[in-house]
Amino acid sequence: MNLIIIYPDEVGPDGSVVLTGDRARHIRVVLRAEPGKFLRVGLLNGPFGRGLVEKISASETVLRCEFEKTVPPRVPVTLLLAVPRPKVLKRLWAQLATLGVGRIILVNAEKVERYYFDSHVMEPAFYNARLVEGLQQARDTRLPVVDVVKELKPFMEDRFGAMVSSGPRLIADPSGRAGVLQRLRGVKLAAAEQISLAIGPEGGWTPYELDMFAAHGFEAVGMGPRILRTDTACIALVSLLAEVLRVDLDSAH
Amino acid sequence: MNLIIIYPDEVGPDGSVVLTGDRARHIRVVLRAEPGKFLRVGLLNGPFGRGLVEKISASETVLRCEFEKTVPPRVPVTLLLAVPRPKVLKRLWAQLATLGVGRIILVNAEKVERYYFDSHVMEPAFYNARLVEGLQQARDTRLPVVDVVKELKPFMEDRFGAMVSSGPRLIADPSGRAGVLQRLRGVKLAAAEQISLAIGPEGGWTPYELDMFAAHGFEAVGMGPRILRTDTACIALVSLLAEVLRVDLDSAH
Repeated sequence: MNLIIIYPDEVGPDGSVVLTGDRARHIRVVLRAEPGKFLRVGLLNGPFGRGLVEKISASETVLRCEFEKTVPPRVPVTLLLAVPRPKVLKRLWAQLATLGVGRIILVNAEKVERYYFDSHVMEPAFYNARLVEGLQQARDTRLPVVDVVKELKPFMEDRFGAMVSSGPRLIADPSGRAGVLQRLRGVKLAAAEQISLAIGPEGGWTPYELDMFAAHGFEAVGMGPRILRTDTACIALVSLLAEVLRVDLDSAH
Repeated sequence: MNLIIIYPDEVGPDGSVVLTGDRARHIRVVLRAEPGKFLRVGLLNGPFGRGLVEKISASETVLRCEFEKTVPPRVPVTLLLAVPRPKVLKRLWAQLATLGVGRIILVNAEKVERYYFDSHVMEPAFYNARLVEGLQQARDTRLPVVDVVKELKPFMEDRFGAMVSSGPRLIADPSGRAGVLQRLRGVKLAAAEQISLAIGPEGGWTPYELDMFAAHGFEAVGMGPRILRTDTACIALVSLLAEVLRVDLDSAH
């Protein structure tokens, strides 16, 4: 926990925040904070700040928080991910938030098993807790927006364009000879642009699905001859995008 | 299992291989192979080939294998990894083999807990099975070489130079302003060269360790402001190296 995330409804009018549970325990046991110490905090989907430890006991921790004025930007990466097996998805949530994804759209695909949609790891209460855990690791406050899409074709036709109006659209598939680095070399994102990345199920996208994504402007990017597990591929591709964006930003400033 | 790895001592003089256990089960249950069908096989640390299914029963599967003449090259990436928590390392082995690492050197560091070295996940029988699993996923035959180093300083002074004589040496640390992409831009690896990458424990390398690596030619590379978990950082950085090497190779040919 490199940042303590505070939920907006936890902040009293005077900036006081009463914590119990994991965060209180972390402050007491791992950070061994004492009254008078300042901790790094962040308001969920809001600014960073600092919290003065006012009181620590076994049952609760009281902080008095001050927040900065500016809110960090959301990461301009939208991931369209064919729903992975629950066991895999369970471990992915926090890592995706840690790596920096602005929006996660979990989509159905021909090779996705129907029962995956009924898993508890697809429930907001479950994934939001994991995403916040990932933000606290990464030191970010912007919770990825999550959408669950059970019918891919109407979603792509009617809704995707409104969510992500512009920016490069990539789909991971062995047919892509160019990799992410080659495809994005020299690309500069404008302010409202997003990089969209579609990652298929184990077993891959079907030709029909690939055609549909191509019709919506998605270009195939490959990862070479090695075949990665979905979770490894997700982390690998999202890190590549994050690194490309970072180099891009660094060289632009 | 995208490739069935055969161990050299399993191959009879006529190329016949009797499989039991996981691989036999995979061939029977997942691939639903029948006699007369050819399967993609690879000799551990040797060439790819094909195996004709001669016999399938609940207890064993018999293949007759033919192997190619050439052996795929080992991936020119050497990872120096401060021993992670057993729970993390357990899951990392297969992923590192899948992503393509030629050599994994697990090293001690000031912030590594001593008991990590006693875990069963550090035993060759455990990790070789996980590494082979990763090769079968990635379709590679070259088993990463694993070394375990309990004393970092004498190792770096006396042995590392003989293992990895030339090539870029990088160490992941927030002090590195340049990232992997910037640092390796335009670098071409000569035939015997390796990229070496050192990744620290949770809590990071100490200043003393950073100085020691710097004295051995390691340059710090950063990953931006986000703080990643060790396993996420490992996968992210190794994928970046793999992608840089691939682009490099593609543009060289």
